[in-house]
Amino acid sequence: MKKVLFFTSLFTMFGSSLAFSMSETPKSKVLEIPQETANGIAFPVNYQGWDTVAVSYREDNQTLRAIIGNPQAIKAIENGLTNPWPNGAVLGKLVWKARQDTHWKAAKVPDKFIHAEFMFKDSERWADTKGWGWARWVGLDQVPFGKDAESAHSTCISCHTPVAGQDWVFTQPAVMPKRIP
Amino acid sequence: MKKVLFFTSLFTMFGSSLAFSMSETPKSKVLEIPQETANGIAFPVNYQGWDTVAVSYREDNQTLRAIIGNPQAIKAIENGLTNPWPNGAVLGKLVWKARQDTHWKAAKVPDKFIHAEFMFKDSERWADTKGWGWARWVGLDQVPFGKDAESAHSTCISCHTPVAGQDWVFTQPAVMPKRIP
Repeated sequence: MKKVLFFTSLFTMFGSSLAFSMSETPKSKVLEIPQETANGIAFPVNYQGWDTVAVSYREDNQTLRAIIGNPQAIKAIENGLTNPWPNGAVLGKLVWKARQDTHWKAAKVPDKFIHAEFMFKDSERWADTKGWGWARWVGLDQVPFGKDAESAHSTCISCHTPVAGQDWVFTQPAVMPKRIP
Repeated sequence: MKKVLFFTSLFTMFGSSLAFSMSETPKSKVLEIPQETANGIAFPVNYQGWDTVAVSYREDNQTLRAIIGNPQAIKAIENGLTNPWPNGAVLGKLVWKARQDTHWKAAKVPDKFIHAEFMFKDSERWADTKGWGWARWVGLDQVPFGKDAESAHSTCISCHTPVAGQDWVFTQPAVMPKRIP
């Protein structure tokens, strides 16, 4: 019993000291920013903090998607100004392979993370690519998609051609109750 | 031509003055906070700003869901401390009827907004209801669900019984790339 207590105390001491050093130096945790894409788009740090724009489920490839927007995109939605979207708006799509839920068999829920993909609106910078910078980072390591600038754009654009009439964006923002500031 | 210019100028003047007065008094826009539920839970103002926890699609009732979390819930997920969830964590579910997307026939996307429902973790306050305060606000007007305190809780709890072993929460947080602070 004494031996058990001794090890417990050591563990507690180590645990406390670790917690202390972590709260003292939160910046010491090294997280590298993923590389920019071949078409020169910088990784949008902390996109996980962006707000919900919509969700979707694709039956053809069994994937679930959270569609999120940066603050400029959310403001555009609230003002009803999304065709065209204003410069500065960024839309993101987080994509997971779907699986059957363990406890609710008729529900599809996220399994493996596939990629995060983004559209950056800037009608001047991206005049040659429909007014948007197109970018995707693949997997949990967020590896840039596209071997060169041309393919990084063209793969996205060809798929989005059916929605050329709604500023190249598939997503219709989901209707939600008004925000209360 | 002069007449057109005159009206344009009037419109511009009015537009500017409106924009000015709006930016001067943003608080003048009255948005009422929805009523608390019959079991005494206050409406979580600005939940639309919470981060994504997961998404789901229910084939049995054709609904799409965005699962979101308040900052305490997100911190618990990042620390892997979700069974049990810590006091203060709140999980939300925004639910829409699903419809076929207009331009991608094999995709389900949000149609009518059905309700926003929440679980508020407080193991002391809600000791009699599995450690959670259960709440739902229905429709775009966010009308509290449940005619009395008992029904406001029991309807939720009976449905969540299959997940008693995971602190009464269906959602397994979706795996996502690490945040870069």
